[in-house]
Amino acid sequence: MFSITVRDHMMVAHSFRGEVFGPAQRLHGATFVVDATFRRPDLDVDNIVVDIGLATTELGAVVGALSYRNLDDEPDFAGINTSTEFLAKVVADRLADRIHAGALGEGARGIAEIAVTLHESHVASASYERPL
Amino acid sequence: MFSITVRDHMMVAHSFRGEVFGPAQRLHGATFVVDATFRRPDLDVDNIVVDIGLATTELGAVVGALSYRNLDDEPDFAGINTSTEFLAKVVADRLADRIHAGALGEGARGIAEIAVTLHESHVASASYERPL
Amino acid sequence: MFSITVRDHMMVAHSFRGEVFGPAQRLHGATFVVDATFRRPDLDVDNIVVDIGLATTELGAVVGALSYRNLDDEPDFAGINTSTEFLAKVVADRLADRIHAGALGEGARGIAEIAVTLHESHVASASYERPL
Amino acid sequence: MFSITVRDHMMVAHSFRGEVFGPAQRLHGATFVVDATFRRPDLDVDNIVVDIGLATTELGAVVGALSYRNLDDEPDFAGINTSTEFLAKVVADRLADRIHAGALGEGARGIAEIAVTLHESHVASASYERPL
Amino acid sequence: MFSITVRDHMMVAHSFRGEVFGPAQRLHGATFVVDATFRRPDLDVDNIVVDIGLATTELGAVVGALSYRNLDDEPDFAGINTSTEFLAKVVADRLADRIHAGALGEGARGIAEIAVTLHESHVASASYERPL
Amino acid sequence: MFSITVRDHMMVAHSFRGEVFGPAQRLHGATFVVDATFRRPDLDVDNIVVDIGLATTELGAVVGALSYRNLDDEPDFAGINTSTEFLAKVVADRLADRIHAGALGEGARGIAEIAVTLHESHVASASYERPL
Repeated sequence: MFSITVRDHMMVAHSFRGEVFGPAQRLHGATFVVDATFRRPDLDVDNIVVDIGLATTELGAVVGALSYRNLDDEPDFAGINTSTEFLAKVVADRLADRIHAGALGEGARGIAEIAVTLHESHVASASYERPL
Repeated sequence: MFSITVRDHMMVAHSFRGEVFGPAQRLHGATFVVDATFRRPDLDVDNIVVDIGLATTELGAVVGALSYRNLDDEPDFAGINTSTEFLAKVVADRLADRIHAGALGEGARGIAEIAVTLHESHVASASYERPL
Repeated sequence: MFSITVRDHMMVAHSFRGEVFGPAQRLHGATFVVDATFRRPDLDVDNIVVDIGLATTELGAVVGALSYRNLDDEPDFAGINTSTEFLAKVVADRLADRIHAGALGEGARGIAEIAVTLHESHVASASYERPL
Repeated sequence: MFSITVRDHMMVAHSFRGEVFGPAQRLHGATFVVDATFRRPDLDVDNIVVDIGLATTELGAVVGALSYRNLDDEPDFAGINTSTEFLAKVVADRLADRIHAGALGEGARGIAEIAVTLHESHVASASYERPL
Repeated sequence: MFSITVRDHMMVAHSFRGEVFGPAQRLHGATFVVDATFRRPDLDVDNIVVDIGLATTELGAVVGALSYRNLDDEPDFAGINTSTEFLAKVVADRLADRIHAGALGEGARGIAEIAVTLHESHVASASYERPL
Repeated sequence: MFSITVRDHMMVAHSFRGEVFGPAQRLHGATFVVDATFRRPDLDVDNIVVDIGLATTELGAVVGALSYRNLDDEPDFAGINTSTEFLAKVVADRLADRIHAGALGEGARGIAEIAVTLHESHVASASYERPL
């Protein structure tokens, strides 16, 4: 199995509901350093999984649509705890939609799996992986 | 599949038996930067894998019971090469015991797998993963 | 010159005023991974700059008083752009106050300089350094 | 499942053919920081996956045979786009050959899988994994 | 003293002349992860050293003019060993020129020093610092 | 001012005397990831500070003479707390001795300063810097 991983980041405010979150129930924020991995069993005709430059551009578009926002005010996330693991799924699903729409090129249709990791600090991260 | 990963570290002395270890047969030491990953197919009612704060606390308890010790003198490890890969299993198994005992909360019972990586330097690490 | 550096982090929400900030004028957030450095020309009687454990505890107290908050609502920062470089100075000044108050022990009075770096992402950071 | 990972690096020149590569069609270069992971279900008689020192030596030999070269001039890669993902496979396959030849010791024959990651920058990497 | 640091990278081919360089006398390549630091004694009217976004854009322009090239063919570097430390000076000097030309805004004229570090691998880097 | 930095590591056991050290008074251990920086105002005739390969070799020799040992048993350190900051000085002084002895080449005599940082974990480090 082959894969490539590209990295970007986003900076958001949000709050959580639920006693388990302790002080994180208050409005606070996070930088999420985002790693997006694309996996496939064989390389395409250019001998790559998907172009790293193109993957970087598309990841940038996905995180750009989330960054510099208070996620508590986003209609897409109304009533939802925007936990790091949940946001990893949001990024992965949006990348999958872009691949299906052809934004990563025809060759990208051979991608089998996407995995997204959000690093919320130097000591904590969350991931989500799914088939394409 | 979702996961969260938390990081801590421990500082231990130990020695190895076996020619393959060369100079590491002498009493020496290591800092192990420890990454513990918890995986599950679905999020719990709070929209998380397990609370990152609680996971950090429990990992801290597990590594705290190993740190600042000469592992050659620990009864649990008598006659055992406490290799990095072996210690990764020790940390993973002790975390699994804590989950089964309820220390990570009722929601944590949905955790399916644990993976533990010990970084012994900037150029070497070892991991162990197991189902819960 | 000797120094020790300890690391912690804080997660805050805030917004900026000024056109230069572009989208960061909106309420957003950041994880700041904080490195605090203590410098002195000679070691103390224990052969250290200051105890790393004690320095970690005090840094934890300083960042804990800032973390999980919306800095726009903090009276200390009313009308102030809480830029990364400004917050580096806040952390450095509060650490200096703690040293002067004896919180890092008598030996810490030999500390000559403090430097604080806040990493806001994998690609940007800000620092402030001052004499004690 | 247990694993160990060792790290080294190589510095090469190369160019790519294909419009998707944009400016990377020109002769340029890369540092690849290489992580090689060896996995097996059980530890050997020394309580390890494979000796980290020996694995480091063998990885060094494999990357040393590629480093400080213009890959466009290497007969092994004539007419091939030496993409990061392709080079990850080259390193993994050459490590597998060495294990089969006994270079990592008799115990290493229990290794089940190899995974190799090449980090081409702080924001991009590629991997290949295969059974032994 | 305050500072901000921003990061980008460039991928180049080159070769060195001189026996001390050993195998690096052959045409090879490198990824340089570039950290550019801007220092000043006081913050500007926006409470910053210089806008991190603007600094990132300008650093991107400087490294973009060097990246995806064989430096042996660049007229600017004819007959010059483009060592990591030399290239750190090239980047610093070009950033200084941009500040003097106003590309980082009027506020940036208060910048006192620039420091540039090029990381050529996980185990080696070079830096150059100069007054503005 | 120019500089280059090279990295290696060492793995040692030791213990500390003094109540401030708490549990670190017990025999324990550490991996020290060691960064050695060499600074000079001008480059040598090869356009470098000192050859990175040669600096790496010499740093390797210095840390190799300390690694895989119990520092409590080393005659050089009898009765001394081998704190991270103290060991940074040991490494820096031994590198300075090697430069004076010509081990880094004639060109290295232009080196003005040495700085050594020992990272004892992902959250703590110590440094020492001195003129040559």
